[in-house]
Amino acid sequence: MGGVGAHAPPGARPIHAIGIVGIGLIGGSFALAVRRARPGVRLIGVEREPALERAAAMGVFDRLGSDLAALHGADLIALSAPVRQNAAVLTELGATFPTPVLITDTGSTKRVLLEAAHALPAHVSFVGGHPLAGAARAGAEAARADLFQRRPWLLTPCEATRSLADVELVASLVSDLGAEPHVMDAEAHDHVIAFLSHLPQLTASALMHVVGNRVGARDLTLAGPGLADTTRLAASPPAIWRDICATNSDAIALALDALIDALQRLRGDLTAGEAIEEIFGSAGRWRALIESGQRIREPEVS
Amino acid sequence: MGGVGAHAPPGARPIHAIGIVGIGLIGGSFALAVRRARPGVRLIGVEREPALERAAAMGVFDRLGSDLAALHGADLIALSAPVRQNAAVLTELGATFPTPVLITDTGSTKRVLLEAAHALPAHVSFVGGHPLAGAARAGAEAARADLFQRRPWLLTPCEATRSLADVELVASLVSDLGAEPHVMDAEAHDHVIAFLSHLPQLTASALMHVVGNRVGARDLTLAGPGLADTTRLAASPPAIWRDICATNSDAIALALDALIDALQRLRGDLTAGEAIEEIFGSAGRWRALIESGQRIREPEVS
Repeated sequence: MGGVGAHAPPGARPIHAIGIVGIGLIGGSFALAVRRARPGVRLIGVEREPALERAAAMGVFDRLGSDLAALHGADLIALSAPVRQNAAVLTELGATFPTPVLITDTGSTKRVLLEAAHALPAHVSFVGGHPLAGAARAGAEAARADLFQRRPWLLTPCEATRSLADVELVASLVSDLGAEPHVMDAEAHDHVIAFLSHLPQLTASALMHVVGNRVGARDLTLAGPGLADTTRLAASPPAIWRDICATNSDAIALALDALIDALQRLRGDLTAGEAIEEIFGSAGRWRALIESGQRIREPEVS
Repeated sequence: MGGVGAHAPPGARPIHAIGIVGIGLIGGSFALAVRRARPGVRLIGVEREPALERAAAMGVFDRLGSDLAALHGADLIALSAPVRQNAAVLTELGATFPTPVLITDTGSTKRVLLEAAHALPAHVSFVGGHPLAGAARAGAEAARADLFQRRPWLLTPCEATRSLADVELVASLVSDLGAEPHVMDAEAHDHVIAFLSHLPQLTASALMHVVGNRVGARDLTLAGPGLADTTRLAASPPAIWRDICATNSDAIALALDALIDALQRLRGDLTAGEAIEEIFGSAGRWRALIESGQRIREPEVS
């Protein structure tokens, strides 16, 4: 890497090589989207041995390895493993990566990385990131270059973000991938995402679990599109969610308490129906807001 | 109506005229579907004064009125108002309808009609009915002739069902409308539908209420497709649901208790994650069953 600029702040330099650690739905889609938006950038993938073959089958990486040493030469590294693994990798890169580098991640909780970020050496800059995108199916096989089109991508700078230019560099990259960057701090992120993403996931899984167990396979075939929509998220893999819940447990507990409280109010007033009137009325107004947003987005989604 | 057959069991006679009481999404779709499947049948609609104009605008009814007397001459009457109104109309028709008639309904709870059915005179036969169909929008404006295509239509015969032929007549009619008739008793219906339909509705509304109130309008624009799917049902109108909850409160309370229990188990184990593993695992298996059912259905849905 040496030569002029080797010790300049990472954000001031162009990106020649991007490393991605963890090649699942998000990491794989990130690779495909970068290849489409910035065809000249070199792509390096790191994945555990058993999943390396699936990553290779994507045909998008210039180099693949199962060791972080494969990242040698990357200007920017995106961590796309489950969040607690991302924290461990960030710590290890801080201790071993020899050249200036800008690191970001794509995890669903952001406070978890602050401690590892705090310990980073000065030549490593870190900007947290979270694309609000997903798909019904997980894994590299489901990766798509357009997964982030018109989706928000939250950026959470912290004390390990060495310059504003680093935030701008990541924002510019994710904009090129079709996403809409929004900057917020890690604390605010984890609180709002507990409600926008983590609570809906836990609710959909709990609902599917309860309905399936209580009605059984035969009667489940009677279910209408309402149950199908409400439980779509229940196909999500548990492993990712163990990490998310463990690293955002305080905010998620508050969100679950609020939902349990609303369900208990409905339960206590099924006959008179005043809680139904109030909660359905409020829900209908918020839902209309979501639908108006979708109508604005949908015509342009590919 | 007189002449030969006037006092024969209703189910033994062909249907010449169908009356529909309550012209919303379901009643309106029922009318459109009958017009398409059985073009020779006369259609009579009954709706409250303020909504009569919308029903007339559908252009599908041979006669429209705001009084049950408009139903004169109907061989079959479908009650499609909110369920407590259907029970009141059934009682009134039992006391006033002069000729043999087969009555069914399209409500989401079935035990509510048993008392009114018990008091019916012998020339009135009743078979409960519940099409498991819905749409994101309510009202006659959203009515569609294909709303029932390949959807289950539950039939709940009771002591006021005068002959097996009456059940067969309704089953044959709804089959012609594209639906799949299933016979069960009212008690079993209300229990299983509390889980398959009522619980998902209450959950979606409670979730949308909580998320909207806690994150506010600005951050709600960040929401991804997961929240949008999980809260799709929250657009449902409160009025219908006050009736449904009031007439199935015991079964719905059990369903809510089961969900609250699962949410509390998740809440109590966010850090260790064993409840997440178990509930997500179970939910994923049930969800896969729903998806395999959808894959079978979807290619043929119009």
